[in-house]
Amino acid sequence: MSVIRHITLPAGFVAAGVKCGIKASGKHDLAILACEKDAAAAVVLTRNQVIGAPVAWCRKTLPRGYGTLRGMVINSGCSNVCTGPRGLKDAATMARLAGAALGAGASKMLVASTGIIGHALPMAKIRAGIAAAATQLGTAHDEEALLAIMTTDTRPKSAVVQTRIGGKLVTVAGIVKGSGMIAPSMATMIGVLTTDAAVAPAALHKALRQAVAGSFNAITVDSDTSTSDTVAVFASGAAGNNTLAAGSADYRKFAAALAEVCGELARAVVADGEGATKLVRIAVSGARSDGEAEIAAKSVANSPLFKCAVHGGDPNWGRIAAALGKSAAKIDPARLVIRIGGVTLFARGTGRKFDLAKVEAHLKGTEIDVACELGLGKGRFTAITCDLSREYIAINADYHT
Amino acid sequence: MSVIRHITLPAGFVAAGVKCGIKASGKHDLAILACEKDAAAAVVLTRNQVIGAPVAWCRKTLPRGYGTLRGMVINSGCSNVCTGPRGLKDAATMARLAGAALGAGASKMLVASTGIIGHALPMAKIRAGIAAAATQLGTAHDEEALLAIMTTDTRPKSAVVQTRIGGKLVTVAGIVKGSGMIAPSMATMIGVLTTDAAVAPAALHKALRQAVAGSFNAITVDSDTSTSDTVAVFASGAAGNNTLAAGSADYRKFAAALAEVCGELARAVVADGEGATKLVRIAVSGARSDGEAEIAAKSVANSPLFKCAVHGGDPNWGRIAAALGKSAAKIDPARLVIRIGGVTLFARGTGRKFDLAKVEAHLKGTEIDVACELGLGKGRFTAITCDLSREYIAINADYHT
Repeated sequence: MSVIRHITLPAGFVAAGVKCGIKASGKHDLAILACEKDAAAAVVLTRNQVIGAPVAWCRKTLPRGYGTLRGMVINSGCSNVCTGPRGLKDAATMARLAGAALGAGASKMLVASTGIIGHALPMAKIRAGIAAAATQLGTAHDEEALLAIMTTDTRPKSAVVQTRIGGKLVTVAGIVKGSGMIAPSMATMIGVLTTDAAVAPAALHKALRQAVAGSFNAITVDSDTSTSDTVAVFASGAAGNNTLAAGSADYRKFAAALAEVCGELARAVVADGEGATKLVRIAVSGARSDGEAEIAAKSVANSPLFKCAVHGGDPNWGRIAAALGKSAAKIDPARLVIRIGGVTLFARGTGRKFDLAKVEAHLKGTEIDVACELGLGKGRFTAITCDLSREYIAINADYHT
Repeated sequence: MSVIRHITLPAGFVAAGVKCGIKASGKHDLAILACEKDAAAAVVLTRNQVIGAPVAWCRKTLPRGYGTLRGMVINSGCSNVCTGPRGLKDAATMARLAGAALGAGASKMLVASTGIIGHALPMAKIRAGIAAAATQLGTAHDEEALLAIMTTDTRPKSAVVQTRIGGKLVTVAGIVKGSGMIAPSMATMIGVLTTDAAVAPAALHKALRQAVAGSFNAITVDSDTSTSDTVAVFASGAAGNNTLAAGSADYRKFAAALAEVCGELARAVVADGEGATKLVRIAVSGARSDGEAEIAAKSVANSPLFKCAVHGGDPNWGRIAAALGKSAAKIDPARLVIRIGGVTLFARGTGRKFDLAKVEAHLKGTEIDVACELGLGKGRFTAITCDLSREYIAINADYHT
């Protein structure tokens, strides 16, 4: 029997996923990832001011964002957000029970929950689920761990990259769930990454923050930042390389591999965005700073009018110009150039005659490239989004909490 | 024969609207509003950095935002945006021709255009249209002027308020087109207000800015700020009151009447928003400042997830909490209270048991009230929006430029 593996591909990790009855559908809904011994770990959490109890737990466990941990427990079907003191207690209980099953204290465990907001976790089911998952930990149930973190994702999303560091083969793997704020009521982007590289915790955190900035923080499905976004990475050190510290050439090689995995996962999230039929890259260059380039790119990526135009295959550069112009980033229409699929539609103040058939053919594809050159400096940023379709409305309007 | 009147109800104004062939549909597409003699005038324009040539003309004509003018010429069907030097020349020509028909110079005229972006105005049709409209100026063709500024509006929108100032009956009237960024490709909010009150130009501008802040600037259909937004007011002085200066009790009475007309028109724009089936008020109170209250209210008003939930009649307070939390306004979940239709759904950190039938009945109506008390200060702001429906996607995705 063949076995699909993701986050247990790097040496030193086991995982399990079970059905414990949190989801009404009866699908997989609880996962444990365990490091066989203490591993370097780092986490990046949502910047929303309204945060779930699991996010509060992760902050408390890793106040600096990195440390040494044994694993992570994740459930879907209920996000444990806006649940007050009881929610905090439930998140701590999840950490304690999952940690005990691994012979570790609660403070060695991260917790993540995804699903509906405002409902208390069904703790009897969670307890039974953690007990069942603990008995199945291994490398054979990796795929079930991935299934257990999904909510309305239409497909599982994972990525693996291998590279040689200090003469050792190093594997970086990751799984992710989410497509913006997924229905039913509220959802979350949760990513779990593993590597067998030996990396100092602080360096791991730095590499994660950089990778997230260019990947998960560059995507948007609907501009609605979740209350539960969590990306965690665990490094077992089992590859046997000398422990990486920030700044070395080997560290940069590792950071690049981590960024590649995060990039692949982030693109997968957008491609599976609610109602999405196309992936759209908006590359802004020539901004006064990278920060302004990000503001401008995200203004286009979050424009409902632009996203509808992409859905309809309409080369509507006016909506791109308007979305750039309404942003807080400095724009000078007289210097602005807008291209779709490499074809210039607007340059220095006016629309250009262009090959309509060529642009329409590009827009009929599933990957759309928009380039906006601002002509004001060296700042650049590429945002990634999807189109806006009737299906998004159906998913988010027809569901009842 | 009965005659519908709007902006010619205040004494001292005439108007006309004609079909000159700019719109492919053959509907009314050019309007002139004329003051019988020089009138105080004020204008508020889009803050988008990409602006239409007519907006550039209005800025040049009234650099301080107010002055003494004779009228305004408006066309629909083509917005004259991103049209380069030719667009600026065409806007100036419109002002010159319409001014000449009134015996005034170009510098006495405002210009507004609405419709598709990136196309040059058909100037032969515009010339013929201005000539035809000039011969029809009067009070009998008021309704045709309103029809001529519409694009995909599903209904004409106007409002009239009367009040006594200094013993004189004063009328304030207004017409408006738009529902955010209306299809076809890009559209605009254009509002024209008239009054027979005598008001000093600077005071008129102050009253307009205040009225717009609480009305047009408080609404959002899709967060996409237009390149052409224009609201202008003309005061003929024909009512015979002593000229109002800012600060007096009579000025405040006039400003209140102007704000009332703007508020009615702004609500009409949202109610006619693309695909809208419901008008939604989001009242934020207890913010650290009015500015932060506006940021928080607009974050909810622009959340696609929230707007979909309203469309589906789903009392999904989690999406409201998340939209508040992602905003740049300070939020403390432990102090936050969220109400829909007067019913408390969330208070101080947790969801509350509530009368679901009562909230669902409120959500089935066409006017929805959401109240968010932040508990952090005295700042308050009410944003007004509409729901997000499949029809919005249809309008904005299925059209081809």
